[in-house]
Amino acid sequence: MISFDYKNLLHSTKIRTGIEPDKLELMQEAVQDAHAEIQKDRQQDILGFYDLPDQNVDHITDYINSLGDRFDTMVVLGIGGSALGNKALYSALRTPSQLRRKVLVYDNVDPVFLDEILDEITLSKTLFNVITKSGTTAETMASYMIIADRLRRTFPDDYTERIVVTTDKEKGFLRKLVNDSGYASFIVPDNVGGRFSVLSDVGLVSSAFAGIDIKALLKGAAEMRQRCAEADLMSNPAYLNGLLHYIYMKQGKNISVMMPYANSLYDFADWYRQLWAESLGKRKDVKGRDIFVGQTPVKALGSTDQHSQVQLYVEGPNDKVFTFLKVESFAVDYVIPNLHPDREEVNYLGGKKLSQLLNAEALATSYALTSAGRPNCTITFPQIDEHHLGEFIMMYMIQTVFTGKLLNINPLDQPGVEAGKNATYMLMGKKGYENYLEDLKID
Amino acid sequence: MISFDYKNLLHSTKIRTGIEPDKLELMQEAVQDAHAEIQKDRQQDILGFYDLPDQNVDHITDYINSLGDRFDTMVVLGIGGSALGNKALYSALRTPSQLRRKVLVYDNVDPVFLDEILDEITLSKTLFNVITKSGTTAETMASYMIIADRLRRTFPDDYTERIVVTTDKEKGFLRKLVNDSGYASFIVPDNVGGRFSVLSDVGLVSSAFAGIDIKALLKGAAEMRQRCAEADLMSNPAYLNGLLHYIYMKQGKNISVMMPYANSLYDFADWYRQLWAESLGKRKDVKGRDIFVGQTPVKALGSTDQHSQVQLYVEGPNDKVFTFLKVESFAVDYVIPNLHPDREEVNYLGGKKLSQLLNAEALATSYALTSAGRPNCTITFPQIDEHHLGEFIMMYMIQTVFTGKLLNINPLDQPGVEAGKNATYMLMGKKGYENYLEDLKID
Repeated sequence: MISFDYKNLLHSTKIRTGIEPDKLELMQEAVQDAHAEIQKDRQQDILGFYDLPDQNVDHITDYINSLGDRFDTMVVLGIGGSALGNKALYSALRTPSQLRRKVLVYDNVDPVFLDEILDEITLSKTLFNVITKSGTTAETMASYMIIADRLRRTFPDDYTERIVVTTDKEKGFLRKLVNDSGYASFIVPDNVGGRFSVLSDVGLVSSAFAGIDIKALLKGAAEMRQRCAEADLMSNPAYLNGLLHYIYMKQGKNISVMMPYANSLYDFADWYRQLWAESLGKRKDVKGRDIFVGQTPVKALGSTDQHSQVQLYVEGPNDKVFTFLKVESFAVDYVIPNLHPDREEVNYLGGKKLSQLLNAEALATSYALTSAGRPNCTITFPQIDEHHLGEFIMMYMIQTVFTGKLLNINPLDQPGVEAGKNATYMLMGKKGYENYLEDLKID
Repeated sequence: MISFDYKNLLHSTKIRTGIEPDKLELMQEAVQDAHAEIQKDRQQDILGFYDLPDQNVDHITDYINSLGDRFDTMVVLGIGGSALGNKALYSALRTPSQLRRKVLVYDNVDPVFLDEILDEITLSKTLFNVITKSGTTAETMASYMIIADRLRRTFPDDYTERIVVTTDKEKGFLRKLVNDSGYASFIVPDNVGGRFSVLSDVGLVSSAFAGIDIKALLKGAAEMRQRCAEADLMSNPAYLNGLLHYIYMKQGKNISVMMPYANSLYDFADWYRQLWAESLGKRKDVKGRDIFVGQTPVKALGSTDQHSQVQLYVEGPNDKVFTFLKVESFAVDYVIPNLHPDREEVNYLGGKKLSQLLNAEALATSYALTSAGRPNCTITFPQIDEHHLGEFIMMYMIQTVFTGKLLNINPLDQPGVEAGKNATYMLMGKKGYENYLEDLKID
């Protein structure tokens, strides 16, 4: 079970902001209200991510089994919620689980990046997984057309078997393409938004392909869902962390730093960045009033960023809340040999494990920030595996929706991205968008 | 020559913050003062990075030439300023310049990360470059001891030729080791701090090893230094950008987002993160008064993060200044085939280049942010090559020091990292640090 240490998020002689421990119960009514809102949403079936742990995944494992040894690599063509979860799971588990197949994610339209991916793969051994809920995302459709064209020319007889599509079950251009062309396909559920979709087909197909135990992942998520089922702050880490972050947002702490002390969890900080930013960064509250709310998520890496960001974190404006991710036991470890036993500069390291030094740095940074009055918390993974990642994913999805309820905003929409999309259409000459700049009133 | 478009940083009908264009001249006195401070510092020889473009690099090219074909990979062991510049240059130029040798950077003490690197390299064909100015950095010395021990056991006859050291020219444990063991060595100059050292031996040795044209890099830096030699805002992009960021900091914009629209420049956003955060994130001004100043740098990637962060950027708090990095001409490009000419959802993409879509997205995002009143600027690279990266590096180093002068802080120190270092020593059992927690007054 992952643990959540929130001691340094509470008001104390060192942390002069936040909420006093004995005032937490005063928040119980707000917590109950937010909890009730979530229950109502679940009854109206608009929070589908809650139910993903219960799904039957035979359709995924059957498909992966049917592939046999035909492919050694999957390239995901997707962006945002169709990419970040896939990347995070694969890079977290790649080494500790000794995965048997490779997953690459092309989540941009950078031509050099595409060139590097095509250089790395063997085209004949690669399966492409095109993921877009709407079926019209410009970046994904651009890379789809390049890849589909290349596969069709290289493998005219069986190119349709080299592409799998994950999209809406009925709507959109990609679903039509699936019906016309016979691509294998998977579904982005109606009631699950992109940034909440990692435990759906969106994240599970590439994971199962790589060799990740997706049932263990869902089991971990189910256990966290159970742990967060009641509106009891002391037993529900998602609600407690959400509430404490909400209080800090109200106190003007506009930045949330997630700092894993493990390279393999760094991509989960990117997954968190989307979840937190896109869900809570909103202009209007649910009544349509301007509130311009949202905490900017920042990813940092321990101990690396101690030598880059910690000077600012300790001495700069007190405008941040920190979350450290720690791992107790690493899949591999190295002992530092005592090469210079007579030299005080380095002999204290001799005989210690690398993981011991890494975790000492995490604790030391927490001490330094606390001493400087900067609120921080720590989530500890006993080890990095499917079960604990499932817990982590579910905790943060619940925490995000809960915090959105406290803020009185809609955590499920993203109206602010339309202007940029439409301006891109205009610049690329899409029909109907010729005069969009005038709408934006840009000189 | 890289160009700097600052139009959307100025006060306008859309951007309601910042400074009116016609008020810029009122800042001329502050600009002159900061410029005079910089000249004084240069005379006292504490801003050594200014002079790096003039150095003779024969000692580097001679050493690299002497290696012949013996090694195919260099692994840098370093962290912070000893790592970020090396990574940024290598990943920016890897594909466009078709570099002939590989550079990896181990800049952490994560055991899984070390395992992945050792798995990727051929030990007999790998040269290790240990970089630390002090010669005592815990992370770097830990990995040095693991690697040196392994090399000594595997190659007892010539292991000293497989390690090269970059450190202070006289002081520190590593310099002593060089003198005792006969490692080849390079120098971190006295008057160049880690985060300003990429154009010294620190960044140039690994670059030359990879096949990067380090003379072209220095030439680009020299040209930018010339462009920024006078305190004339309109011709000096470093001073102008520094001043505009300073004004926004004073107006409470505590976040600086750098968003390259090119995957290969993403690591330069990390280099910038250290430069900006560690230089300007300070508790005290030069007179010792508490001011708790500093802008939190955030890295984002276009177009990827449009599907993750732009919702927050457009609709959340107006607390950010944005810098887009754009590339006009990519080293490789792909044309999007018009696979579905009769389908309006995608046929507007047909026949266009990927780079065209990517750059349209950059411009569209700038439109969307401007329309929402969010200040933003764009730096455009004609192409990614050594010359333009040299310009960019020098521009940002000058801009950072200049902004530090405007803020009345010391941009060259980092007193805030000591507490964490000492707490690590305490936790790892280093002699003399047994009671450090009591100093921190942590319960």
